[in-house]
Amino acid sequence: MPKFSKIDAHWMSIALKLASNGRFSTMPNPNVGCVIVDIKGNLIGQGYHQKAGQGHAEVNALFDAGFIPHQNSAISQSYPHFTPVTSGATAYVTLEPCSHTGKTPPCTTALIEAQIARVVIASVDSNPEVMNKGIVLLQEAGIQVDTGLMGSEAQKLNTAFNFRMTHNKPWVIVKLATSIDGKTALKNGQSKWITGSKSRINVQLERACSCAILSGADTVIADDPKLNVRIDELPEFASSLFQKRAAQPVRVIIDGQNRLHNNYQIFQDEHKVMVFNAQHNPLLTANNIEQIQVALLDPKGNQTTQHRQYLDLQAIMHVLAEKQINRVWTETGAALSGALLNMNLVNELIVYQAPMLLGSDARGAVNIGQLTNLQQAIETEFEEVTQVGGDLKIRLLIKS
Amino acid sequence: MPKFSKIDAHWMSIALKLASNGRFSTMPNPNVGCVIVDIKGNLIGQGYHQKAGQGHAEVNALFDAGFIPHQNSAISQSYPHFTPVTSGATAYVTLEPCSHTGKTPPCTTALIEAQIARVVIASVDSNPEVMNKGIVLLQEAGIQVDTGLMGSEAQKLNTAFNFRMTHNKPWVIVKLATSIDGKTALKNGQSKWITGSKSRINVQLERACSCAILSGADTVIADDPKLNVRIDELPEFASSLFQKRAAQPVRVIIDGQNRLHNNYQIFQDEHKVMVFNAQHNPLLTANNIEQIQVALLDPKGNQTTQHRQYLDLQAIMHVLAEKQINRVWTETGAALSGALLNMNLVNELIVYQAPMLLGSDARGAVNIGQLTNLQQAIETEFEEVTQVGGDLKIRLLIKS
Ligand SMILES: NC(=O)c1ccc[n+]([C@@H]2O[C@H](COP(=O)([O-])OP(=O)(O)OC[C@H]3O[C@@H](n4cnc5c(N)ncnc54)[C@H](OP(=O)(O)O)[C@@H]3O)[C@@H](O)[C@H]2O)c1
Ligand SMILES: NC(=O)c1ccc[n+]([C@@H]2O[C@H](COP(=O)([O-])OP(=O)(O)OC[C@H]3O[C@@H](n4cnc5c(N)ncnc54)[C@H](OP(=O)(O)O)[C@@H]3O)[C@@H](O)[C@H]2O)c1
Repeated sequence: MPKFSKIDAHWMSIALKLASNGRFSTMPNPNVGCVIVDIKGNLIGQGYHQKAGQGHAEVNALFDAGFIPHQNSAISQSYPHFTPVTSGATAYVTLEPCSHTGKTPPCTTALIEAQIARVVIASVDSNPEVMNKGIVLLQEAGIQVDTGLMGSEAQKLNTAFNFRMTHNKPWVIVKLATSIDGKTALKNGQSKWITGSKSRINVQLERACSCAILSGADTVIADDPKLNVRIDELPEFASSLFQKRAAQPVRVIIDGQNRLHNNYQIFQDEHKVMVFNAQHNPLLTANNIEQIQVALLDPKGNQTTQHRQYLDLQAIMHVLAEKQINRVWTETGAALSGALLNMNLVNELIVYQAPMLLGSDARGAVNIGQLTNLQQAIETEFEEVTQVGGDLKIRLLIKS
Repeated sequence: MPKFSKIDAHWMSIALKLASNGRFSTMPNPNVGCVIVDIKGNLIGQGYHQKAGQGHAEVNALFDAGFIPHQNSAISQSYPHFTPVTSGATAYVTLEPCSHTGKTPPCTTALIEAQIARVVIASVDSNPEVMNKGIVLLQEAGIQVDTGLMGSEAQKLNTAFNFRMTHNKPWVIVKLATSIDGKTALKNGQSKWITGSKSRINVQLERACSCAILSGADTVIADDPKLNVRIDELPEFASSLFQKRAAQPVRVIIDGQNRLHNNYQIFQDEHKVMVFNAQHNPLLTANNIEQIQVALLDPKGNQTTQHRQYLDLQAIMHVLAEKQINRVWTETGAALSGALLNMNLVNELIVYQAPMLLGSDARGAVNIGQLTNLQQAIETEFEEVTQVGGDLKIRLLIKS
């Protein structure tokens, strides 16, 4: 007999949808959604995790059903025959309920107190230290636990979080905006605008669900960009979800040669900028700056750059992971994009492709050195292709 | 009241499907399909045009219904009350029936003799000289004629034919096989294989429904390709349809400097090769060669080529149109593709995009000179994106 019915799938898909509402605001936490269905099959509660430090999905859903978690233990001890509204209900959760006391008490306790009879879980916790612990606790309390329903959809909601948990590196996405023949700018540098306005709004959405936006000193010097999320450019659904978030994504700028100073636009607002360099830069004194030093190394593979040393990009990624950065959205030029690719630090490529040809003389997208054999090509696979206005948005996963 | 019912749409969609069976073999004629439905609403005949000189779709469909067109006029004159099986039926035709005697007698006559009561037509004839003539003839015979049902689908079946009829130029498709960053080969020339085997089979399909395959002397010298349709590489449905065709697509090779000689592979088989040059090339004596001279001109726009004269590509296209070439499939390198684009001679771009990055140092797809302003970009629009094996196939229409 199959473990899951069509009805189970129906409720889990609602829980997944709820979970995804958190994608602009839960970082560094994962996205989780929860639906509570009573014995008669009626939806009685729903919730999702909105923001670190605030209620988890299960607690929000139980609360929505009329049960106040963590305040009922006293009641149930005094009145052992107290029957909460959630008694005998099924909880559909997209991620294994937590079993530890963090900023909030464990969700397993809340589910047990609420006398939930069955918990259906899409995916188990990717953190090796807690994986399966929540499931065992629930089972020990006599709750039926069924796992794996729509597991891969649930995994995809937390690709970046899961990757950081298992690899101690952030999930890095390189964004490219190119013509159909792969060019990012004319030879003279002109690139405003290759892609259309809908693609540029889409970039705002991608920034909005990222933990960090990564770029380099050359881009800052050449374009003086803000690299922030412009809330009024987001579609309405996203701007209201994004505003639950504590802060703008942190801007991460690589400046191995201390070429930057306070006057660039990214240093003019109150939102954080992390500047990675080899030595402290005394010119960077603006309030929003955190400087972090990492080692200089010989560049790997990149024969097209001058022969000199560059910051250790791998070390930078580890620092970002320690700072609980799950998802890094890079908007850089061909040099830094190429260096990240050559160092095997990129997980995903998002190419906004505009329907124009710029010709062989225009600027290429990624400098990865001169290959002598097709085996050296950076291999990827197509994950998703969508139309965004007049452009294509192509998502590719880098093969490792 | 709408002119067309759902039932009409049903039958016309079958006629369109039939028509498309001819796409490998009707050239230089258009693709046409026909369905005959009797008064009770039963399908009694279906047919499509297979090959120039053979039966048109209407005649084939009437024949399939049991009515022998053009042999019945004698009978109906002797027996004025003779009622053919098709009497009172509706004919669904994807293209306006012809009204002239070509290699076969006019279809309008056949439909009238068959006592068809109603003719539903998807699109009118694009040839300005005969447009609407068939319709008027049918109406004068008392037949109800309704036009325009699924007209755009029908047009798309004959894009290339219609374009030649109205522009006296063939419909030219430039094929590119690139990495996701727009590169066609490594700097050292290596390009075997960027795209996957499914894409290469797809190229065979595209060749198979083309009238001509265009390339240049440099490609012949560099790769010594056959540029033919390899029937055993086609999917089964296509190989049986292709075999109705009279001949392989004609190979058209541009050789402005008489660099070619008999020893290349394209000159080793019995299938035709047209070589365009400025002066007759005495070295090209193989039986399958037709040499055609056109003028030399200064190249337009292409600042990257050495300053010298090239064959007049526009004149070449007019020659091909005169030779009833509807659809030209070009497999060339960046120089000739770029020149055709710069001369505004390209209608469609088909890009097979492989999921790999080759980097800025690899070879670009089209040499169109050094643009100084994004307004000079060649503008296109996405028409269709499909997955072909692990690659994307992107069809774009060039904006004129
Ligand atoms: N179209 C777009 O979407 C877009 C987006 C961003 C940028 N751009 C354009 O891109 C151009 C700049 O591109 P870019 O990539 O040169 O600049 P970038 O994005 O600013 O990256 C340069 C930074 O990367 C570092 N770097 C370069 N190679 C490295 C290696 N092998 N290892 C480690 N670090 C390395 C450099 O180090 P050092 O500090 O040591 O020099 C520098 O800090 C500008 O013209 C800008 O307009 C376009
Ligand atoms: N990956 C693929 O699918 C693919 C397909 C085909 C070719 N290729 C590669 O492409 C390379 C050759 O590319 P290519 O484009 O240089 O060669 P091509 O396709 O052979 O085209 C060169 C021809 O075009 C003519 N031509 C060039 N510029 C012109 C202009 N402005 N006006 C008129 N005619 C012009 C040349 O004239 P003249 O005769 O006067 O010199 C020559 O005959 C080879 O390396 C080949 O391997 C790759």
